[in-house]
Amino acid sequence: MQRRTTMARLTSIRAELVVSVSLTISIDAMGGDYGPQVTIPASLDCLKSNPDLKLILVGDEAIINPILLQQPLQHQDRLTIHHASQCVTMDESPSKALKNKKDSSMRVAINLVRDGLADACVSAGNTGALMATARFVLKMMPGIDRPAIISTLPSTFGHTHVLDLGANVDCTAEHLFQFAIMGNELVKAVEGLENPKVGLLNIGEEDMKGNEQVKSAAKLLENSALNYIGYVEGNSLNAGNIKVDLIVTDGFVGNVALKSIEGAAKMIGVTLKEAFSKNIFTKLIALIAYPVLKSFKKRIDPRLYNGASFLGLQGLVIKSHGGADKLAFITAIQLAEVEVKKDVIKKISAQVEKVLALRETA
Amino acid sequence: MQRRTTMARLTSIRAELVVSVSLTISIDAMGGDYGPQVTIPASLDCLKSNPDLKLILVGDEAIINPILLQQPLQHQDRLTIHHASQCVTMDESPSKALKNKKDSSMRVAINLVRDGLADACVSAGNTGALMATARFVLKMMPGIDRPAIISTLPSTFGHTHVLDLGANVDCTAEHLFQFAIMGNELVKAVEGLENPKVGLLNIGEEDMKGNEQVKSAAKLLENSALNYIGYVEGNSLNAGNIKVDLIVTDGFVGNVALKSIEGAAKMIGVTLKEAFSKNIFTKLIALIAYPVLKSFKKRIDPRLYNGASFLGLQGLVIKSHGGADKLAFITAIQLAEVEVKKDVIKKISAQVEKVLALRETA
Repeated sequence: MQRRTTMARLTSIRAELVVSVSLTISIDAMGGDYGPQVTIPASLDCLKSNPDLKLILVGDEAIINPILLQQPLQHQDRLTIHHASQCVTMDESPSKALKNKKDSSMRVAINLVRDGLADACVSAGNTGALMATARFVLKMMPGIDRPAIISTLPSTFGHTHVLDLGANVDCTAEHLFQFAIMGNELVKAVEGLENPKVGLLNIGEEDMKGNEQVKSAAKLLENSALNYIGYVEGNSLNAGNIKVDLIVTDGFVGNVALKSIEGAAKMIGVTLKEAFSKNIFTKLIALIAYPVLKSFKKRIDPRLYNGASFLGLQGLVIKSHGGADKLAFITAIQLAEVEVKKDVIKKISAQVEKVLALRETA
Repeated sequence: MQRRTTMARLTSIRAELVVSVSLTISIDAMGGDYGPQVTIPASLDCLKSNPDLKLILVGDEAIINPILLQQPLQHQDRLTIHHASQCVTMDESPSKALKNKKDSSMRVAINLVRDGLADACVSAGNTGALMATARFVLKMMPGIDRPAIISTLPSTFGHTHVLDLGANVDCTAEHLFQFAIMGNELVKAVEGLENPKVGLLNIGEEDMKGNEQVKSAAKLLENSALNYIGYVEGNSLNAGNIKVDLIVTDGFVGNVALKSIEGAAKMIGVTLKEAFSKNIFTKLIALIAYPVLKSFKKRIDPRLYNGASFLGLQGLVIKSHGGADKLAFITAIQLAEVEVKKDVIKKISAQVEKVLALRETA
């Protein structure tokens, strides 16, 4: 059993960065629950760990500058500020953000990607507004009908990539097929795998199981060049019997599954904490067990899995969790660094073109 | 915050049973991964803890009798054997089971409910075959289009009831509404709640979120007499910000969410075990922390949540997990005891009739 722990994953990401070429990432400095208080320190840490990285902090100069002044000056030469007068709030409707916030930090950060001034954009802002803005500004990749959100989850085998995590509330079989093509290229590039194992999320592993859309998608995948391994069930997201590198599903199911897992992990964490907080004896035991509990926590720390990529657009946008702290936001920036370095968007685009050409000649 | 732990839940279930009237449950003795090796010892334990309980073991006498002989004789006077010559295998297709296995332990156990000889049936057999057989034998409740599977999940608030967990791969808004009506009656009866909080599973809490089916179901629920609290997200299944007693979703999403939670719990369990097994020191710490870890494990032990009820049929069928051990199968039988005692089927039927009558006069 090939095991890749979180630390191994991060170590390999960091090893990649050492030999990286110059890259520029625009940061929506105002996005997320904590805004610049998190995005700025995280940005400086990323500059420190990757000497080839340049960052553009997009947001209100009057807010960004005082915070930057409090930070160490080191590495700030690779940091520029790009003023944006507006800010998209966390509960703003995507259509309103698109219409009324043309100078928002989010919009301007994405504009920089469109204009070739940044290789990717990272934002912890409102997901709906970020997706709508990214789609409007960057445009869809030719051949792809809908964008999808992809991220990783820790699993007993290391980790699993999953899409769509919520961009689409209902999908056709063709949409699911397109998600698989895109996700497969991302996994190939990021993990260095030649033939990622691709599974389709369903409520059973037998052929007869599932709804029409999943059954039709299975046929498309069976007839494709992908290493399609068949249906997988919900438990495969974290702990299936066989390793699967990429799990494809529609955004409704994917989003519910992701949040169910978050809820389960939270509940289990609370329960574990309660068990160790019951009385003076259990608290003493907690003290003794602290190093073990710490290493356990680190392995499944959701902050080390932060960052979801929007696929299907003509440019790279990474969404960080809104509640991300510094470590979590660093993970999201590092994900952007890896995907830029691995040329994920170009590879997906080339593959989509190839699949389309094959279909036309078929 | 009202907290109901697993133990509190089981204690309250057991307290109910003490004042129970005579009830008879048919057991599919051959069902599940372990068959009579699990179902028989579990049955005897249930007879021991509830003096008003009578059980009918349905299955192959030639297999059941020798196992019964190895068990203590006590309480066996309330146990009868009903011979059934066939057995539905775990991977048999529902249609084949229905057509070719008319004398299966599963079918005969359900027949006993139809014929009024048992108040409920418990089976750990093949879910698809059990549902198809139960639907064929017991018939649908008038006014209900489709059966649904309901069970409980541990949550930070105690536990949450969820349906549908996999009976239906796609549902209309009307189906979801019917599930809510049925689930609400079950929760009222089993939990003794007057106005259970009912949530609809979605990918966000805002009105604009979700697919058409969920949005339409929300309108039906808003206009109903139910205590509908709105959309809830996947994390609410285990650890939402507010307590919700009943979560309604379609069977595809519900099944994926349930299995995702199972997978996450398994992965976290494996990770915790690994952390404590790393070396001689961590193993020593595990020894010291053993009582705490044991109490933690007990709180989220899936065996204490085993048992799902089929709703929408004219009779009570409880599905146990196929891999249930003795403790898990006991939990499933005890769930049947509680639902019989609380007259869940009759209450649901009366409520469905009432809602239908209201609609006709509207």
